[in-house]
Amino acid sequence: MHVVVNAATSADGKLSSRRREQVVISGEDDFARVDRLRADSDAVMVGVGTVLADDPHLVLDDEAYRTDRRENNRPENPARVVADSRARTPLDARILDDEARTYLLVSEAAPRDRLDDLRAHGATIVVAGEDRVDLPAAFDTLEAESVDRLMVEGGGELIFSLFEATLVDELSVYVGSKIIGGRDAPTLADGEGFVETFPELALESVERVDDGVLLRYSVS
Amino acid sequence: MHVVVNAATSADGKLSSRRREQVVISGEDDFARVDRLRADSDAVMVGVGTVLADDPHLVLDDEAYRTDRRENNRPENPARVVADSRARTPLDARILDDEARTYLLVSEAAPRDRLDDLRAHGATIVVAGEDRVDLPAAFDTLEAESVDRLMVEGGGELIFSLFEATLVDELSVYVGSKIIGGRDAPTLADGEGFVETFPELALESVERVDDGVLLRYSVS
Repeated sequence: MHVVVNAATSADGKLSSRRREQVVISGEDDFARVDRLRADSDAVMVGVGTVLADDPHLVLDDEAYRTDRRENNRPENPARVVADSRARTPLDARILDDEARTYLLVSEAAPRDRLDDLRAHGATIVVAGEDRVDLPAAFDTLEAESVDRLMVEGGGELIFSLFEATLVDELSVYVGSKIIGGRDAPTLADGEGFVETFPELALESVERVDDGVLLRYSVS
Repeated sequence: MHVVVNAATSADGKLSSRRREQVVISGEDDFARVDRLRADSDAVMVGVGTVLADDPHLVLDDEAYRTDRRENNRPENPARVVADSRARTPLDARILDDEARTYLLVSEAAPRDRLDDLRAHGATIVVAGEDRVDLPAAFDTLEAESVDRLMVEGGGELIFSLFEATLVDELSVYVGSKIIGGRDAPTLADGEGFVETFPELALESVERVDDGVLLRYSVS
């Protein structure tokens, strides 16, 4: 499986303010780029923190992409994937509507009746790992379901976990021309953090987009 | 006074690991650029957290810059400035040696006998503010001492405070091709963080340097 992480940060590396409120970081050209990236993916993934904070929909914005996918015998929208160890995704979350298939990656610690409720609301449950989702194992399951190209949209806890598990192939960061600040604000890669060796990236391209810059990296 | 903030971050916006250990983020070309920027400044500033974590020297590396400054009747090295509300700079800190003048910006909460000790070790004390350094007032004092061009090298707490006080004129960020991660790792702008309005930057230039990219912003 090919995993592309895509996110927008402020010039100081933040995904949002310390209140977890979304801040407009990029502009129309970057939104269009992100929509195209989604259209090129088999599935779009976020962590449950992002579901709880933003209630994203994760479907395609541009109707032309849906038409194009339909004509190529693909689902109109890419599948949606949530890393959700304890099955905390709300039953009324927008990602559970019927516009696309939705996989919830949970651990064995997720309550069984909760999983039944989520299944009844349309979720496909993938159990992997004891207390936390075993991401490599869960990704093997997704791959068996024909998810060959996965786009990850955040948040920082999930992105760190993916780098920790060496599952990231590409990273695209749109750096917006703004300061958000805050020692408690979410950053592109949170988690415990690396301390001795650090994932090395190769900067593949640098492009000015809207009033910021898009940095594309491959992961060594 | 013209204030330039210059820092190097990982692709995820971190200045160092959560252990506050320095990580090599840039390379030789960027080190040379930073030395030139120091040589062009009247003073170089850090926060006391950086003094305690890294014990920086903050003098010029390239002998040619020292010679040049001497020939122009300027001090061989730019002055050094530490924002240090409680006067926690250690008496054996490298920035207190006699290679350059050193200003410690303290608040009225700093212990008097500590200030006497620091003065005896060569520091010039500037008192401004009750519990925390009043940065605008302290900068007025520096300006009266002929500091017209100030370079700020971090850390994230000081940089946030300077943006909060609208004292920053330019920001240069070298973004290295590495992931550091860590929700507790220092970032380019820490502090409380902005929540409703955010300082807006204008991206003046984008340049590939070493294996990363240098972003230069002016502050609106």
